Amino acid sequence: MAQDRTIVIALGGNALAQPGEEGTITQQFGHTRESLGAVVALAREGWRIAIVHGNGPQVGNELIRNEQSRDLVPPLPLGVLVAATEGWIGYMIQQSLQNALRRAGVDRQVVTLVTQVVVDPNDPELERPTKPIGRTMDEATARSLAAELGGDVAETRGGWRRVVPSPRPTAIVERPMIRSLVAEGHLVIAAGGGGCPVYPDPRWGGGFEGIDAVVDKDRAAAILARDIGAEVLVILTDVECVYADYGGEAQRALGRITVDEAERLLRSGELGEGSMAPKVEAAAGFVRSGGGRAVIARLDQGREAVAGQAGTEIVPSA
Amino acid sequence: MAQDRTIVIALGGNALAQPGEEGTITQQFGHTRESLGAVVALAREGWRIAIVHGNGPQVGNELIRNEQSRDLVPPLPLGVLVAATEGWIGYMIQQSLQNALRRAGVDRQVVTLVTQVVVDPNDPELERPTKPIGRTMDEATARSLAAELGGDVAETRGGWRRVVPSPRPTAIVERPMIRSLVAEGHLVIAAGGGGCPVYPDPRWGGGFEGIDAVVDKDRAAAILARDIGAEVLVILTDVECVYADYGGEAQRALGRITVDEAERLLRSGELGEGSMAPKVEAAAGFVRSGGGRAVIARLDQGREAVAGQAGTEIVPSA
Repeated sequence: MAQDRTIVIALGGNALAQPGEEGTITQQFGHTRESLGAVVALAREGWRIAIVHGNGPQVGNELIRNEQSRDLVPPLPLGVLVAATEGWIGYMIQQSLQNALRRAGVDRQVVTLVTQVVVDPNDPELERPTKPIGRTMDEATARSLAAELGGDVAETRGGWRRVVPSPRPTAIVERPMIRSLVAEGHLVIAAGGGGCPVYPDPRWGGGFEGIDAVVDKDRAAAILARDIGAEVLVILTDVECVYADYGGEAQRALGRITVDEAERLLRSGELGEGSMAPKVEAAAGFVRSGGGRAVIARLDQGREAVAGQAGTEIVPSA
Repeated sequence: MAQDRTIVIALGGNALAQPGEEGTITQQFGHTRESLGAVVALAREGWRIAIVHGNGPQVGNELIRNEQSRDLVPPLPLGVLVAATEGWIGYMIQQSLQNALRRAGVDRQVVTLVTQVVVDPNDPELERPTKPIGRTMDEATARSLAAELGGDVAETRGGWRRVVPSPRPTAIVERPMIRSLVAEGHLVIAAGGGGCPVYPDPRWGGGFEGIDAVVDKDRAAAILARDIGAEVLVILTDVECVYADYGGEAQRALGRITVDEAERLLRSGELGEGSMAPKVEAAAGFVRSGGGRAVIARLDQGREAVAGQAGTEIVPSA
């Protein structure tokens, strides 16, 4: 039984939106409702659960909304836009999950917490904005926007985009609250979009100050899983597992690997240049920090993944 | 001593922004930090505290951002925009309050909850959009926007604006969670902007569905105060008290009045047409529902107001 065992579930962007879609709120609510089957099943089994959702397309849209209206209303900084997506994506997931639990006869509360994530103000990533965000533009538009609003732009696949720093999270500010709510059996939505990045500021006597950056949600989920003593971290995405020699002749699906093997794959570059390497890095980091196991799996196989029947599982080395 | 006594504090829009200002994030953070003195003092005295903040200017700006970018990204519905402001205003207040408590040596946690507020789907207000929101426009722009995006527009003081329904809240969906967190001594930011309005939908087996409306934050605070068994409701705003015969020859400041007297003033129209009547109505409603007392006072006199030394206090009739 799963009683008293804690799981952190990282829900990828495809839990809310599909590539190529317009991304209306009806579509987003529809995907959200469809995506929660595994969470409901795990809740029914008695797992203690925290959910971390992505916000890539949504915070990109917020940035576009702020750009386009800048002559009428002052743009908000990136950390504040992340907080906005914690609110509205959290609302969508919370309401959909409350309704799904009710239909399933599972009597547990759902709560969404605005969450801050600590980063190191000396993280070199802060000087190196590389995470693309928002719409693609032609070079002239991109450069003119950067000149007017500040920030950086770069050429990416598909065109020019704004790029922002993505520093590593070191801790979750609200970890005591999240830990106790999860321990009480509530389903806690936290660190949405990776959380609002903050750093301890001497001006506030070591209190926190926001920073213009975004934190990768899988990394934030791994830190949260460590901070609340979770046994399992599950990263749900749009591919069914991790592949060795990805795109090469010897490509092969990986079922269970040790954290040593995961780190070797990361060093070898075999995982390709897409989004899989950062997921494996986050998953391995959780296991390395003392976590029981981490699983990377496809969204619709979440329950099987937790049972060890789908996805790629990363376990401690012997 | 205030140990074990619960207060709900409704923070008006002026806690975050001043009329006539551009409303940059620096200005908003500055006002937020200045506004929290009373909360910190009450927290130090041992009060159990829930905070409900307004979002009028902010959700208006969100609406403008959505309008202006509608050719690039699909606009979000009003309830989702409210959730976004719960996230980002909550983040501002939470971070500022955490830092202020730390400086004051008060060891209590702060948490921001995404909150849904139940409304009656048959509330006649839903058929009567009268709450102005967002920017003022000329009539042609307003009518063309309404034709394109749906919704209503009306002429208000200052020009044409969008108008939205403001139904009465009947309950707070997350009340058990808020009640227990407040009881444990945490400072809980909830029902921001009045909360996301929802109604029980037969399609979800009585689960909740969002609705395109906004809920008055003072009304939501009164319902929350009732739902969590608060002793005191404090509505902090930009005027120092309630006046009888407002704007008339016999205008006079009111110190302490009974709920009967408050209801008589509401019926008489003596409170004027501004925002004071709804505040008195919300305050009186809380006392009528069994609350100990409600105080309406100026933001910088919050602590004195709770001590009965400032503002207008509404108490049960003998």
